[in-house]
Amino acid sequence: MSKNPIKHVVLFKFKEGTSESQVTEIIEGYKALPGKISVMKHFEWGKDISVENLNQGFTHCFITTFEDEAGRDAYIPHEAHQAYVKVLLPHLDKLLVLDFSPEVGQ
Amino acid sequence: MSKNPIKHVVLFKFKEGTSESQVTEIIEGYKALPGKISVMKHFEWGKDISVENLNQGFTHCFITTFEDEAGRDAYIPHEAHQAYVKVLLPHLDKLLVLDFSPEVGQ
Repeated sequence: MSKNPIKHVVLFKFKEGTSESQVTEIIEGYKALPGKISVMKHFEWGKDISVENLNQGFTHCFITTFEDEAGRDAYIPHEAHQAYVKVLLPHLDKLLVLDFSPEVGQ
Repeated sequence: MSKNPIKHVVLFKFKEGTSESQVTEIIEGYKALPGKISVMKHFEWGKDISVENLNQGFTHCFITTFEDEAGRDAYIPHEAHQAYVKVLLPHLDKLLVLDFSPEVGQ
């Protein structure tokens, strides 16, 4: 199993009708996960501010860094992650998850 | 205009029938851009290795960091970027672009 770091890219599109306070609560829930799941070595997120009209409806991006694939594999079934997913999913219209082991350019 | 760094997240799904050598050429073309476009302050990329079956068909992720929104705004119309887009687009089934100004957690 690779020991290369893994970047875990997650995009959300909320359902129409999801209130601002629900969106905030869901974001706060994600932000709380690194405090509960030690394999989340770095976490960053933000709201889409792209100008090319190619976001395919997704509005929020969250990137977690795991030390290696074993970290990612420990995260997915972690009870704090699973509990979060249960709260999250009813509010999502679309969800995208893509992981990669980064090759770094300049 | 914000002086916060911008992460520019790009996902590709290639058309069926795109050969491995065409995929390699397209990736090499993207990797060459930071050498031509000074506002690309950091660049990393990789092939999807996610296991949650939520990649929505996207297979490659590229993340560029710009120093600020002005950097992103200089990148989009840059002739090296525009020349690359012309070569790229005929090979893509789907393209997703999302930018965010990262808030960093743990």
